[in-house]
Amino acid sequence: MSDTRHTTREMLPEPTLRRLPWYLAYVKTLDAKHVEHVSSTQIAKRLNVDASQIAKDLSFLNIKGKTRIGYEVHPLTKALNEFLGFKYRHNAFLVGTGSLGSALMRDLGLQQYGLNIVAGFDVDPSIVGTTVAGIPIYDFNELAARQRSTGVSIAIVAVPFENAQDVANALVESNIKAIWNFTPYRIKVPRNIVLQNTSIYADLALMYNRMEQNGSNAKTATK
Amino acid sequence: MSDTRHTTREMLPEPTLRRLPWYLAYVKTLDAKHVEHVSSTQIAKRLNVDASQIAKDLSFLNIKGKTRIGYEVHPLTKALNEFLGFKYRHNAFLVGTGSLGSALMRDLGLQQYGLNIVAGFDVDPSIVGTTVAGIPIYDFNELAARQRSTGVSIAIVAVPFENAQDVANALVESNIKAIWNFTPYRIKVPRNIVLQNTSIYADLALMYNRMEQNGSNAKTATK
Repeated sequence: MSDTRHTTREMLPEPTLRRLPWYLAYVKTLDAKHVEHVSSTQIAKRLNVDASQIAKDLSFLNIKGKTRIGYEVHPLTKALNEFLGFKYRHNAFLVGTGSLGSALMRDLGLQQYGLNIVAGFDVDPSIVGTTVAGIPIYDFNELAARQRSTGVSIAIVAVPFENAQDVANALVESNIKAIWNFTPYRIKVPRNIVLQNTSIYADLALMYNRMEQNGSNAKTATK
Repeated sequence: MSDTRHTTREMLPEPTLRRLPWYLAYVKTLDAKHVEHVSSTQIAKRLNVDASQIAKDLSFLNIKGKTRIGYEVHPLTKALNEFLGFKYRHNAFLVGTGSLGSALMRDLGLQQYGLNIVAGFDVDPSIVGTTVAGIPIYDFNELAARQRSTGVSIAIVAVPFENAQDVANALVESNIKAIWNFTPYRIKVPRNIVLQNTSIYADLALMYNRMEQNGSNAKTATK
């Protein structure tokens, strides 16, 4: 990895970073079919993104297409996979092993993207000591000690939203450097901590709303 | 539900719609503690959103705070829950019952937000005929017939990304009106179909990238 690339990575705007996984998913399908080259026009047509935007996005990775030939599919796939961090293993703790939390522990899909959940944590004594998908579940009180012994820096938060802030505070004190928040609660963390929110339920609300607009929302009153 | 409200809902901008679930999560915690009133200033401080923005967002629901008193917590909680569609039951099919798909079937959290997965679909004959969390899994070829008999209009797509577009095409032909895409593949659908992408892996890439910037990315080469 060159220093130059590292520098360009730091300046990478979020919209670019959000488009790169689309390009990766597309070129992976081509790579699987042993297609050798792809033009930005082809990617553009397939993904509904401007060809000039694609060229600009990929230039952040110091990747340039060749005139008339385009990009080499296999090297592009490898470069995107590396750049996005998916080819590295990042160990993580998961806090809150309820329905969503244990679903994430079972979802081996995350491993393909470099996320390796090494331990779960909960406060429920009937769950502590058990395993989910072979991953041990410890008492939440042990998290700080286990962070010290393992050096894990990522924590996934899947607790009930009422507890999200308290858990986040405890994680920061336990030397966790990045929090992936799956609760709908907007937790606050110090500036030096990376916070990533994944708002599954906001996406759901958006989908319901758009269906309502289309008159295609077949819903039933329940509560 | 008044026609007026329906009209304002149709004009609702996406950023507002994405903030409403934060407000809901926060006022729910207050409601659970039997707090009666909350001011937009309080919400603002807690969630790091401008107080004027909050007032504007909530005005889309025809909700206005009272001077000095603020919003009534319980009615606000109910109104947000209804407005976001979480209090209604929306039946859905899930396509692709692999690790991510079956994790979603097991995640009862979705039910709290009004999403009720009634059937899973797969192409693997060893999985067809089994159940996950009590939900039956059928052959993908049966989807159109089961849509006709049930009227289900939402399909969650959790197939390998190589198959995402083919599956989406088949869903559209099967009279599915809304697709919730969990694959990193950017599928295309006709204009009258609601498409919601949830890019868990893009969020992950973003988190890795921000950790890299902070120098807190403890990663290991794997492949």
